[in-house]
Amino acid sequence: MPKIIVEVMPKADLLDPPGKAVANALHRQGHSRIENVRIGKRIELHYKDTPTQSDLDAAAKIAEDFLSNGVIEDVVKIWVEA
Amino acid sequence: MPKIIVEVMPKADLLDPPGKAVANALHRQGHSRIENVRIGKRIELHYKDTPTQSDLDAAAKIAEDFLSNGVIEDVVKIWVEA
Repeated sequence: MPKIIVEVMPKADLLDPPGKAVANALHRQGHSRIENVRIGKRIELHYKDTPTQSDLDAAAKIAEDFLSNGVIEDVVKIWVEA
Repeated sequence: MPKIIVEVMPKADLLDPPGKAVANALHRQGHSRIENVRIGKRIELHYKDTPTQSDLDAAAKIAEDFLSNGVIEDVVKIWVEA
């Protein structure tokens, strides 16, 4: 099924306690190469047929207005996956 | 900062109530081209320098064992972002 994928992450200058907890657990398991972990959202919008440019523009607006909270999150990526 | 990105989604045959709620809200707003919405996770693992193939192999194992619940979720994608 054709999709538009929207990716939302906590803003870089905000703490991310769940990510920090995962990073600490990985360090305890010896994964010292991983410096930090951040956890965000991947949202799939499913379409019956291939999304058009106007679908992508609408999705970008939905991502900013509805799928993310601009105070604490950034939309980092939007793309079509056929 | 170089990263490995891990993406985790609820399994296709499971209900996703938050995704369904978003889909219903979008339909009420007139976005009828969007058939369905699924919400998953995007997890960023941050590295001091560019991840190697062995980092990627380790991340794939971490993704399966630790970042996702194999009963209800699938790891859909893992990639390096320099």
